[in-house]
Amino acid sequence: MEMSRRASGMQASPIRRLVPYANEARKAGKKVYPLNIGQPDIKTPKGFFEAIRNVDLEVLAYADSAGDPKLIEAIQDYYKTYDMDFATDEIIITNGGSEALLFSIIALCDPGDNIIVAEPFYTNYNGFSAAVNVEVKGITTKAENGFHLPAKEEIEKVIDDKTRAFILNNPGNPTGVVYTPEEVQMIVDIAKEKDLFIVADEVYREFVYDDSEYKSFGNYPDAADRVVIVDSVSKRYSACGARIGSLACKNKDFMASIMKLCQGRLCVPTMEMIGATELYRTPTSYFKEVNDEYRKRRDTVYNALKKMDGVVCEEPKGAFYVAVKFPVDDAEKFIIWMLTEFDYNGETVMMAPLEGFYATEGLGKDEARIAYILEVPELEKAMKVLEEGLKAYPGRK
Amino acid sequence: MEMSRRASGMQASPIRRLVPYANEARKAGKKVYPLNIGQPDIKTPKGFFEAIRNVDLEVLAYADSAGDPKLIEAIQDYYKTYDMDFATDEIIITNGGSEALLFSIIALCDPGDNIIVAEPFYTNYNGFSAAVNVEVKGITTKAENGFHLPAKEEIEKVIDDKTRAFILNNPGNPTGVVYTPEEVQMIVDIAKEKDLFIVADEVYREFVYDDSEYKSFGNYPDAADRVVIVDSVSKRYSACGARIGSLACKNKDFMASIMKLCQGRLCVPTMEMIGATELYRTPTSYFKEVNDEYRKRRDTVYNALKKMDGVVCEEPKGAFYVAVKFPVDDAEKFIIWMLTEFDYNGETVMMAPLEGFYATEGLGKDEARIAYILEVPELEKAMKVLEEGLKAYPGRK
Repeated sequence: MEMSRRASGMQASPIRRLVPYANEARKAGKKVYPLNIGQPDIKTPKGFFEAIRNVDLEVLAYADSAGDPKLIEAIQDYYKTYDMDFATDEIIITNGGSEALLFSIIALCDPGDNIIVAEPFYTNYNGFSAAVNVEVKGITTKAENGFHLPAKEEIEKVIDDKTRAFILNNPGNPTGVVYTPEEVQMIVDIAKEKDLFIVADEVYREFVYDDSEYKSFGNYPDAADRVVIVDSVSKRYSACGARIGSLACKNKDFMASIMKLCQGRLCVPTMEMIGATELYRTPTSYFKEVNDEYRKRRDTVYNALKKMDGVVCEEPKGAFYVAVKFPVDDAEKFIIWMLTEFDYNGETVMMAPLEGFYATEGLGKDEARIAYILEVPELEKAMKVLEEGLKAYPGRK
Repeated sequence: MEMSRRASGMQASPIRRLVPYANEARKAGKKVYPLNIGQPDIKTPKGFFEAIRNVDLEVLAYADSAGDPKLIEAIQDYYKTYDMDFATDEIIITNGGSEALLFSIIALCDPGDNIIVAEPFYTNYNGFSAAVNVEVKGITTKAENGFHLPAKEEIEKVIDDKTRAFILNNPGNPTGVVYTPEEVQMIVDIAKEKDLFIVADEVYREFVYDDSEYKSFGNYPDAADRVVIVDSVSKRYSACGARIGSLACKNKDFMASIMKLCQGRLCVPTMEMIGATELYRTPTSYFKEVNDEYRKRRDTVYNALKKMDGVVCEEPKGAFYVAVKFPVDDAEKFIIWMLTEFDYNGETVMMAPLEGFYATEGLGKDEARIAYILEVPELEKAMKVLEEGLKAYPGRK
């Protein structure tokens, strides 16, 4: 009784699979700074809980497969603030951004087809694709270059006759890159020339620092029939546990395919949709506050990393991650060593090894992702622990 | 820009795709009895809403990918009442029974593999399978025979070297069949002989009438490593909108594969898991009350159908559906005609055409599913409307 090849071939989440080591470290009495996962400590806006507390239902019935019309309306209003105009039937609510991505891949790709990502990329793109027999091909980007995109010719080389879409995360997880308007335009141009879709995972849209210019893929009317915008309340409103995402697209064939998939899973949870509707009504002052806080955290982590001998990274401009090259033999070994063998005054740091975020074999072996999701004083201590760990690690190069 | 062949090939839900006709009928002022969908009108136990109202969280963080440990514990306790003993890591919470089914199919089947169902079967098995390139093969069962299983030899004929599992719904949607202990034993025997998994969709476990003997696939210790029990709060607690399901299995390889898929989608919504935990603590007196009510409804519908000229159906023993053969040219045409052309004193009935519930082409064309999910007086009126509609339908045979 073997499992399927596709299931056997899936990698365990590089973000979550080292958790047992962290649990062991905690059991052994160490304090572990959990910088492996993008779980913000920011408070979820109270409106979410209040709306749910006020629910007065007798029967918790199926919702529409496309989602609660009130939530869809709130998302329409939200997109208007970014000059994006989606009709009611151009938005569908999904079980987190995750389901929006999985369904997009199924709707666009048959087994053997491929999607193009900028590697290192959000590792679950790999998982979703493997589960449905779609190949992920990477455009390689580099720490030295702040993980910006290579030239158009380099990107075109990766595309073949089985390529169906780009899936791009902007601002980027795990890199913190924010693509310039020129980069976004370049992708739009290639998609039009090569007849590809662009699945734009823009869940970190509000997390842009230093007045960097942010351009959504939803702002290109001449590509609107090939752009899918994936969204989620998880990061923006620190509501990861709500699992409310959405996709927005003006291509009717695409939306019809997605709708069939949505009908198969019937609907998205009612209570969380009611709460999420309030989240989308959160005043924009909230974003400013959160943004300021993350910028300070970014500064704390980046300034500390720059001072560490042999560490390579560029200043991230968005999201709340930084992808770092360490002067070590193997970043995963280093991270496990930090949890099992090392502590600094009883404390250690957990990070995510970056190898699993690459499609090209052999890349990222000495890289890790740090999520700056703790308060500044905690991050300062965590960076000190990391610095000392790097000095003490036996596999240092 | 074509969509994928797998998405294009998926059928729209036969349960939901006629909804626009019903909406038109309502707009035209008709009262429509919605017997197409298994949406109970029974009140959701209040504990669900109370538990959620009492949630006191500041940050709605990611939950464990396997689910909230408290909910898992509640499910363990529930299964004990059916003499099933699952360890904590043998249960995983899913986004409805739907996700449990989809993930089971992915974990067990590669593209081109097949699963065996008893047709007519829950139509979404088809959708999930098509989305991931798995074929559904049907063991044909018949209205005349109360949709019980054929002889062992007949079932074995359908199995080939690409067959990986049975997916069986017991009690059955859309048929209302409850398999006898002998039928369940026969499937267990075949699964062992042919080295197949049994994905047992037992979400209607409590909906068994007339003291029919109910046997779960979870009660066969010698097959425990090949049995997956799919569960859901949707029907049992009238909480379809919660989208909380689960799967339980003692096969470690299977659970490891499922866990990778679960990590990809991160987690299931927190608030709904908190509510669902209370549902699983509902006193068993609730089931008795609900069961009595559904039995009355079943009697109302079945007795009325038996009196209608040319209608074929056997008394359903479980779930809250009856699959009916009508004396008409085409059941889907008949249902659309009922919505668009017919009314009886301003009222009409909506049902689900059964053709989409079959894997074998050409079967079920004159059949429909009726969900008896309204109160008895409403069902009495609905049956009168149906009887008059059948008399008046121009395509009557």
